[in-house]
Amino acid sequence: MLTGFAKTPEPPYYAVIFTSQRTHGDDGYGAMAEAMASLVTTQPGYLGHESVRGADGLGITVAYFRDEASILAWKANARHGAAQKAGRERWYSHYEMRVARVERAYSGPEGRQ
Amino acid sequence: MLTGFAKTPEPPYYAVIFTSQRTHGDDGYGAMAEAMASLVTTQPGYLGHESVRGADGLGITVAYFRDEASILAWKANARHGAAQKAGRERWYSHYEMRVARVERAYSGPEGRQ
Repeated sequence: MLTGFAKTPEPPYYAVIFTSQRTHGDDGYGAMAEAMASLVTTQPGYLGHESVRGADGLGITVAYFRDEASILAWKANARHGAAQKAGRERWYSHYEMRVARVERAYSGPEGRQ
Repeated sequence: MLTGFAKTPEPPYYAVIFTSQRTHGDDGYGAMAEAMASLVTTQPGYLGHESVRGADGLGITVAYFRDEASILAWKANARHGAAQKAGRERWYSHYEMRVARVERAYSGPEGRQ
């Protein structure tokens, strides 16, 4: 039932919201996306992520981290850097990335506040 | 090209990250989701939203607001309240809602920083 949800601690923590439109064709994207989803779990301060892509190629991935320093370290990871470069050059026609500090969190329907 | 992206101002502003797993069947969900997507645009402080749902029913919607007061006012909207109630009772098997303060934002590939 809970597949796809990140188990995050009590706030505060950080979220990187990445909204993207994929170009057509795979062109190595699927394998790299899987590799990055695996690699990020080894990143100190990584808390979890949630990711959805629709049939029209629009996707939202939200990755959660303990603090800003963890985000900057992940951004600077060399293998991640190669993926970012390919993303800019080939995989995304457009993207928006927002770094946000999570201040409150609720879940439901069970624990609705 | 830019369909589906929210045009947000320079940070800081707020994001409501809503990750949800839909139950099976429509059961009035589609019409209500459209009505809420329209209604929220009339909410003072609303800046835009991005929303994706995958074939497995997992969805992420991120709505952007100027400040916390705008989020609380939208939460308290009566018609939105009726939708929230139906969501808890029928439409979602699970959801996570996180309120976050956006501190930095980038877009690309054009304006990559």
